[in-house]
Amino acid sequence: MSFENTIVVDWGSTNFRAYRFGGDGAVAETHQAASGILSVTDGRFEAALDREIGGWITPSSEILLSGMITSRNGWHETPYVEAPATLADLRAGARQLVSARGARLRFLPGVAVRRPVPDVMRGEEIQVFGATAPDETLTVILPGTHSKWVQVAAGRITAFRTFLTGETFALLRTHSIIGRLIPPNAGVFDEAAFLDGVTQAQASASAGLLNDVFTARAGALLGDFPPSAIADRLSGLVIGHEIRSGLGMGWDSHALRLVGDAALGARYAAAFAALGLPTETGPAHAAVEGFRKLVAASAS
Amino acid sequence: MSFENTIVVDWGSTNFRAYRFGGDGAVAETHQAASGILSVTDGRFEAALDREIGGWITPSSEILLSGMITSRNGWHETPYVEAPATLADLRAGARQLVSARGARLRFLPGVAVRRPVPDVMRGEEIQVFGATAPDETLTVILPGTHSKWVQVAAGRITAFRTFLTGETFALLRTHSIIGRLIPPNAGVFDEAAFLDGVTQAQASASAGLLNDVFTARAGALLGDFPPSAIADRLSGLVIGHEIRSGLGMGWDSHALRLVGDAALGARYAAAFAALGLPTETGPAHAAVEGFRKLVAASAS
Repeated sequence: MSFENTIVVDWGSTNFRAYRFGGDGAVAETHQAASGILSVTDGRFEAALDREIGGWITPSSEILLSGMITSRNGWHETPYVEAPATLADLRAGARQLVSARGARLRFLPGVAVRRPVPDVMRGEEIQVFGATAPDETLTVILPGTHSKWVQVAAGRITAFRTFLTGETFALLRTHSIIGRLIPPNAGVFDEAAFLDGVTQAQASASAGLLNDVFTARAGALLGDFPPSAIADRLSGLVIGHEIRSGLGMGWDSHALRLVGDAALGARYAAAFAALGLPTETGPAHAAVEGFRKLVAASAS
Repeated sequence: MSFENTIVVDWGSTNFRAYRFGGDGAVAETHQAASGILSVTDGRFEAALDREIGGWITPSSEILLSGMITSRNGWHETPYVEAPATLADLRAGARQLVSARGARLRFLPGVAVRRPVPDVMRGEEIQVFGATAPDETLTVILPGTHSKWVQVAAGRITAFRTFLTGETFALLRTHSIIGRLIPPNAGVFDEAAFLDGVTQAQASASAGLLNDVFTARAGALLGDFPPSAIADRLSGLVIGHEIRSGLGMGWDSHALRLVGDAALGARYAAAFAALGLPTETGPAHAAVEGFRKLVAASAS
């Protein structure tokens, strides 16, 4: 496998991102669309792939795919490889398929961990390898709908935890009694309210997330802050509890590197900074970096 | 104020419960309906009251009302009294109104606490006074959509915390990625799965609620338990985190008394028992007991 003719696809639940490499290992073409696997309701994934990047594909194409496209609800399910897992383990765990047009498809596996609690990822692992060097020991944090904290040592994903942070915030804001007090046009980001929430979540007086989120309603009812501050305060409380849990596991004993969505990463960086914790920022396109390392290792 | 001609109404967001006392202080008539204030969309609360219990009301009626009917979204808003609060404080904080039919209405206040974190209740306070004696020091737990843990000492509500437990569970089950794996007909209560969740929430390996709820998905994907166990396991995790928080505050240094919905109370009692903690069960109709004490104190 070489860079010539190699296409890589990061195909998640809601987004499709593809990169075509040139022979020199640089990205020659990029294509992104909101065409995640949830949008492919007829199960015809090859037709969906052709719609997005059909012009790139020839019978000699080698296409690497990662993300939810490799899940039970995707095109071709791959079993998880278990942590500790290396980039070589991902390559070895790939499942091959030849497309109707003769291109070779390689579906990469996700990573699972079973102890002390079960956890899974599909797609984030390629970002983690793209954002770290083989000699580093650190914690990679990928903020999002399902935030992940990933322990990396000597080129291995050794442990990780998923937090339902973004999804919980969205549910509370949209569907809960707390959301009912939030004005329809919340306006610009209220960083002070956000950081108040982050700080409250760390306090010894905090009785956990289920109580803290209720205080975002009670405090507004009692006039402690205006209803316009509820949404960002709630965001701070939920992210703050994710951070409290990560620190509680001692995962800040190594460097903390934020990877993924830049705007959300900046919000997390501000939260950590308010707690006196420095963070690093990973590369902007961690997934494509990860694919590049995987292809380079195959070619060597 | 005497029991003769006294009607008490526990009017919450979703339910309406009214009791007419006889002159001897016993309940002469009871009426319940799913006619909470959210169902009164035209704001005509007196018409709604007449629809429910119009036949009981005369110009000499005294009607005590508690619950969300006394909130900003109800009939007549009462300010909160602040903890520590007694039953006499509730009586003193009531706001009066004479109905179109000449009956005297007394809207009872809710209770607020401002430190260390803000919290409010409206309606639960009458249950708490109904479920406790003036010489008791204990923790009253009212499980539900918004569970409350209430510290009571010498006839006073001294502190309390609200946990968004039931609402969070419902949101996760109905709207989240975890709910997507739950089979449509979950069947009978799986107590073992529930208690596994309760126990997991107390474990030192727990990285907080946001991670634990994700394990209810990851564990099923990895085959640790069947999808049919997810819902009750998730219930155990969320309730287990409420309990962990209550114990973390040291509120189990006094007796724990469960008040309110009997089926939910039994579920909480099983959770506490699995953790080696005994619980007491409060009276079946705590609200009417609280109203009775309030009327008796007014009459004496």
